[in-house]
Amino acid sequence: MIRIAIDAMGGDHAPAHIVDGAVAAARHLEIQIALIGQTAAIERALESHPDWRSLGIEIVEAPDVIGMADSPVASLRRKPRASIRVAADLVASGGAGALFSAGSTGATVMAAHGAFGMIPGVDRPALATTIPTRLTPTVLLDAGANVECRPQHLLHFAVMGGVYARLALRVERPRVGLLSIGEEETKGNDLTRDAHRLLKAAPINFIGNVEARDVYSGVADVIVCDGFTGNVVLKISEGLVETVESLLGDELNGTFSSQVGYLLSRRAFRRFRRRVDYSEYGGAPLLGVAGLAIVGHGRSSVKAVRNAVAMAYRFATSDFIHRVEQEIAAASVSHH
Amino acid sequence: MIRIAIDAMGGDHAPAHIVDGAVAAARHLEIQIALIGQTAAIERALESHPDWRSLGIEIVEAPDVIGMADSPVASLRRKPRASIRVAADLVASGGAGALFSAGSTGATVMAAHGAFGMIPGVDRPALATTIPTRLTPTVLLDAGANVECRPQHLLHFAVMGGVYARLALRVERPRVGLLSIGEEETKGNDLTRDAHRLLKAAPINFIGNVEARDVYSGVADVIVCDGFTGNVVLKISEGLVETVESLLGDELNGTFSSQVGYLLSRRAFRRFRRRVDYSEYGGAPLLGVAGLAIVGHGRSSVKAVRNAVAMAYRFATSDFIHRVEQEIAAASVSHH
Repeated sequence: MIRIAIDAMGGDHAPAHIVDGAVAAARHLEIQIALIGQTAAIERALESHPDWRSLGIEIVEAPDVIGMADSPVASLRRKPRASIRVAADLVASGGAGALFSAGSTGATVMAAHGAFGMIPGVDRPALATTIPTRLTPTVLLDAGANVECRPQHLLHFAVMGGVYARLALRVERPRVGLLSIGEEETKGNDLTRDAHRLLKAAPINFIGNVEARDVYSGVADVIVCDGFTGNVVLKISEGLVETVESLLGDELNGTFSSQVGYLLSRRAFRRFRRRVDYSEYGGAPLLGVAGLAIVGHGRSSVKAVRNAVAMAYRFATSDFIHRVEQEIAAASVSHH
Repeated sequence: MIRIAIDAMGGDHAPAHIVDGAVAAARHLEIQIALIGQTAAIERALESHPDWRSLGIEIVEAPDVIGMADSPVASLRRKPRASIRVAADLVASGGAGALFSAGSTGATVMAAHGAFGMIPGVDRPALATTIPTRLTPTVLLDAGANVECRPQHLLHFAVMGGVYARLALRVERPRVGLLSIGEEETKGNDLTRDAHRLLKAAPINFIGNVEARDVYSGVADVIVCDGFTGNVVLKISEGLVETVESLLGDELNGTFSSQVGYLLSRRAFRRFRRRVDYSEYGGAPLLGVAGLAIVGHGRSSVKAVRNAVAMAYRFATSDFIHRVEQEIAAASVSHH
């Protein structure tokens, strides 16, 4: 049976939300779960689920925790028994098929990289987030695993994003776009111009540059960019949606009749916001490392954790790493 | 009297919207306006304003037009009598105090740079856009004049953005932030880390890194970033607001009661969108060149053109270039 390693200590609402989400996943999937962290805290969180032992859940002790504000490099070195390291080691040793953490993204990326190594031919890992659009969802990567990118990295992101889109979005021949500031291949910065040439020559369904304006139009299934830009895109979007909600409330509060409208549309807005919240897609997989890791938002809800565990399960039952390996090899052949 | 040079041929709705906006500005300001472009087309657009000659408006013939899709470098070289070049030359020769164009941003940046040169001490021009936030508006620069930036450029942007914010937003001591992907000064990419050190040492009110998530919170009066990132921020925001509007419509269309809410909130949303549309602030000034140029959105409305001309007028009656020169000199002294 597939076993998923869960960093029970990572995230703003750990271990409570993490444990509740893991239990919810265990009730619906044929799965074993290792909750990794401080045993006493995890046991307290499990008290409201007295049947947890019968659900295939067990606790793996890890005394140390890496906080959101800690330096990933320093704390991973200083804390070999931190929950995220123990989780990564469990996957690397074959004791689990995939890991999930809603803790520090930097620490998760480094722990996974350290424990798994990279897929042959891939230089840098990338976080793949799924964003909603006017049409079908789009995979955007890198969302922040790797802030300084060379053109070759974006080619790898495109190949890996394509494999992921086929698995997660069930798109047979994903349309891959390059985020830039103009549609013409001569537009953009040095990185995007050089990456454009590589992507055009690669054995992928490359549709050219995608302007930022069109990211939410649904013109591509996969959009690649460096991790700095990708992180800015996601965070700007989060902040803007919150601001739109707040300003819309101000606008609608003006008169009695629009107060009625406000109440109704606030409900609709909440539903919409859930569509925008990428954690609802179950977290962002870290692609490129030679093992399966899903990164959750620090503010992951119980539902988000449940979805992320389901995603980890789906990954672990797929042949993901092997498929990435093959397609990276094919892209390298075509490139040289 | 102040004279403004207007590229009548630039923009999606040129010359009609440009001419109408210029006439509206002329009716309200003590101003002279030179409408630059193809005389016959401009005269046709002026037909609905039979009193135009009494408003201080004149036509300056420029037979050539640079389109949105044309290469700025090639077409500026090939078309010395293009409307944007004639407008820039008019300002450079002292025949006008400022120019406005809603045409190709690249062509306007290059024409202004070529005709005016740079302010001493400034290496690169920057487009300064004003964006709405939950609180007061924020100046974001560079919005796309200069895609490859060095740390020194971001320092210049910060100084120039500060002078502009004092003029346009009437903020006495503008809070200047650096757009990055983490609040700590060690977070970000090579550019933002090095720029952080320069900004910290500069004689400005530097508040540190601003995460993309907080751009629309109103935490800073000026936010600096490279032109690639700035352009992505603006275009992502435009696209996302359009998508939110469309998805919100879908959500609200579900039931009869929410249809009522929809109609009411759609009106509110339209009002909100106008707040988000940066052209309503009158366009984006090009800072750093040794002359005054305002760049308008290609889809500028009549009102946006009117506001941009009013902004050009306000600039031309200020001591903007000289003040930037002084503050750049002060920042360079503190830096060396």
